[in-house]
Amino acid sequence: MSQASILLQKIAFNTETVGIIGLGYVGLPLAVNFAQAGIRVIGFDKSQIKVDKINHGENYIKDIRDAVLREVVGNIKLKATTDFTLIKECDALLICVPTPLDKFRKPDMSYIETACVAIGQNIKSGTFISLESTTYPTTTEDFILPIIEQESGLKHGVSFWLAYSPERVDPGNVSFHTKNTPKVLGAINKEGLEIGEKIYSKAVDTLHLVSSPKVAEMVKILENTYRLVNISLINELALLSGKMGIDIWEVIDAAKTKPFGFQAFYPGPGIGGHCIPLDPFYLEHIAKKYDFDLSMIHAAGHINMRMPHYMYIKIATALNSQQKAVNGSKILFLGVAYKPNIDDARESPALEIIDIVIHKGGLATYHDPFITEVTTPAGNSLNSVTELVEGMQNADCVIITTNHQVFNPELIKKHARLIVDLRNVINEVSEKIYSL
Amino acid sequence: MSQASILLQKIAFNTETVGIIGLGYVGLPLAVNFAQAGIRVIGFDKSQIKVDKINHGENYIKDIRDAVLREVVGNIKLKATTDFTLIKECDALLICVPTPLDKFRKPDMSYIETACVAIGQNIKSGTFISLESTTYPTTTEDFILPIIEQESGLKHGVSFWLAYSPERVDPGNVSFHTKNTPKVLGAINKEGLEIGEKIYSKAVDTLHLVSSPKVAEMVKILENTYRLVNISLINELALLSGKMGIDIWEVIDAAKTKPFGFQAFYPGPGIGGHCIPLDPFYLEHIAKKYDFDLSMIHAAGHINMRMPHYMYIKIATALNSQQKAVNGSKILFLGVAYKPNIDDARESPALEIIDIVIHKGGLATYHDPFITEVTTPAGNSLNSVTELVEGMQNADCVIITTNHQVFNPELIKKHARLIVDLRNVINEVSEKIYSL
Repeated sequence: MSQASILLQKIAFNTETVGIIGLGYVGLPLAVNFAQAGIRVIGFDKSQIKVDKINHGENYIKDIRDAVLREVVGNIKLKATTDFTLIKECDALLICVPTPLDKFRKPDMSYIETACVAIGQNIKSGTFISLESTTYPTTTEDFILPIIEQESGLKHGVSFWLAYSPERVDPGNVSFHTKNTPKVLGAINKEGLEIGEKIYSKAVDTLHLVSSPKVAEMVKILENTYRLVNISLINELALLSGKMGIDIWEVIDAAKTKPFGFQAFYPGPGIGGHCIPLDPFYLEHIAKKYDFDLSMIHAAGHINMRMPHYMYIKIATALNSQQKAVNGSKILFLGVAYKPNIDDARESPALEIIDIVIHKGGLATYHDPFITEVTTPAGNSLNSVTELVEGMQNADCVIITTNHQVFNPELIKKHARLIVDLRNVINEVSEKIYSL
Repeated sequence: MSQASILLQKIAFNTETVGIIGLGYVGLPLAVNFAQAGIRVIGFDKSQIKVDKINHGENYIKDIRDAVLREVVGNIKLKATTDFTLIKECDALLICVPTPLDKFRKPDMSYIETACVAIGQNIKSGTFISLESTTYPTTTEDFILPIIEQESGLKHGVSFWLAYSPERVDPGNVSFHTKNTPKVLGAINKEGLEIGEKIYSKAVDTLHLVSSPKVAEMVKILENTYRLVNISLINELALLSGKMGIDIWEVIDAAKTKPFGFQAFYPGPGIGGHCIPLDPFYLEHIAKKYDFDLSMIHAAGHINMRMPHYMYIKIATALNSQQKAVNGSKILFLGVAYKPNIDDARESPALEIIDIVIHKGGLATYHDPFITEVTTPAGNSLNSVTELVEGMQNADCVIITTNHQVFNPELIKKHARLIVDLRNVINEVSEKIYSL
């Protein structure tokens, strides 16, 4: 009996053990889904805090219901650990680690590399491995495969199978979560694809199989590049519209009435989060190897990078209208999350604007009901102002940087002396209300 | 009784006369819709041929049913003329003339200007005027209004009312046509908006009112800029994917399974037609007045301009694989229409590729079931090859430039010696089949 047949039999009998490497907003929901399907799951993370929380049934991901996590931990289907030698107990390993950019906007592959070395040093023969992290096309075959073969001494296609299946998690999305979002899967060979399909089917409703890992890698990049390019486009058009006295939000609402060939994107102070501002630059990176310049991504990246600066100019202009300088003014930011109703401030443009304001001598504070403290890219540490009304009354200018649903336009209008609304929360313009 | 009240009363009793200026793919369907609503319509066009055809009930627009045109001409609701002095008989005038770019990609406003001068010299007091042609924001108020006031001696808001309502005609669209596509309308003042709404409601099911002509002008530009930017993005990614050995069509099909935040666009040899390759540059033009550089449109335009050249390289590469040069080779293009199943070759990238091939010494021919003859931008005149099979057998290389539904992949594969498939009609790659 081949190793593939043995693994397929285990999967058929639901007796496989699935290891999830990285227990963040991608890995933990996936781990919970497998555990709910009755499969033994080991969750790996370097953070002892996260591991302890999970093993105590304490949830830290907004999109997972607390009761569900407690249930799968309670019936010992899901166990978390910092001990990567337990990889040897797993029949399948799903890698859900971050792929950030370094300070020079080059891919930082260190998390993937560390995970792959740990896998190579610990896997047993007969294991399926899938990468979920967003990365540039060719990563699975040209970067991961050699590491695992070298570290393990095992041969792909005989003793292990490698696949790529991009995560499509959209934090805060109430309609689509890990289980009901169709998942793309590409493997290096046919056996790997078959094994991957059988395993993933237990945690995800719909799989879409493609012919290779690099096709699957490009799929994810295309999805997020589409978003980066379109948000950057509407941001650029918003800046021009501002100069022309045209309300870009009214324009978008009208354009949306076109029943074909249009999808609405909304402007804002910049693009945040862990995917859209980063993923396209993975592609830009690998494109250079092919002597290829991605001009659309380049232009989009440029706009996005400049947005916080333009937003600073808006703030300075608003204050100037009241004969105040940024230097010495009290400036309250409403919202530091990168999108509404979530508690994540990663790559948030609000933080960059705060840094510029502080650098220019402004006295920046913020209020965010979901984020009690932040450290900005420049290293400024701030705590959320607890008394919102008092905070607004004390401020020379209130900047709306996130459109959290709890932000009440009437309350803001009542108490703020001057407003710069970068999210169209107020939806009006006056002497004291400035728009994007 | 004010002039506005008189006009509104006429509209209420269906006794107004509507004049449509420009009887192309935008104006003629609109004229027919008004006539079908029982309103007297005068169609104006400089072309005696078009006018004669209409007055004989001969239809020349694919999206209009012949019987419908015959009916409205037969009951004398619709009459066409080259005599612009009949403008004085009209209570409403809808301008549907082209707005091309000149050779330096600057807006060519001459058609609009000519129409407005004719209107100004001939209108009677109490007329509603609406522009439907795509143009840059501020055109209605800053360009049209002064011309009409000066030529007519009438005052806006008293004796005439000006509005902007962009056409959204998508030739060949089987689901959405002039009547059931929501229409955006912005007028200079409230009275004009009310009159415009009452008139257009007779020809169009749904109206979306906006606060000014410039908002409406920007709406149309946003819609088509969205398309230009996304097609250019996917064309650029297609070129990179080609170099990386990734099938971009497989990537798009997989990305489409994402149930939120993605809209699929498909690559091709370039962007054609009368809107998408042109409209964004109207905005680029006016942006300069505001010291504003639209980098996304600029990058998109650059890719689109270069596509025919890249496609020529694909053709040369394919021929080279069979030890042939373009110079002296017989090259048959399948389709010169800019999109499938229509008979329009305006701005078609196929024509530009044909020009390059001819310039390099290739013997270019084409077959298009909907277009019997074309003249390319460089002035080459060609007739469609009538014997398709024989044409393919005689050609050194067959290039698929339009994905007309009637093109049979099996037939092409059977008879062509070498294929360059720029539209994924064949959907396979082999020694004799090259993809985009």
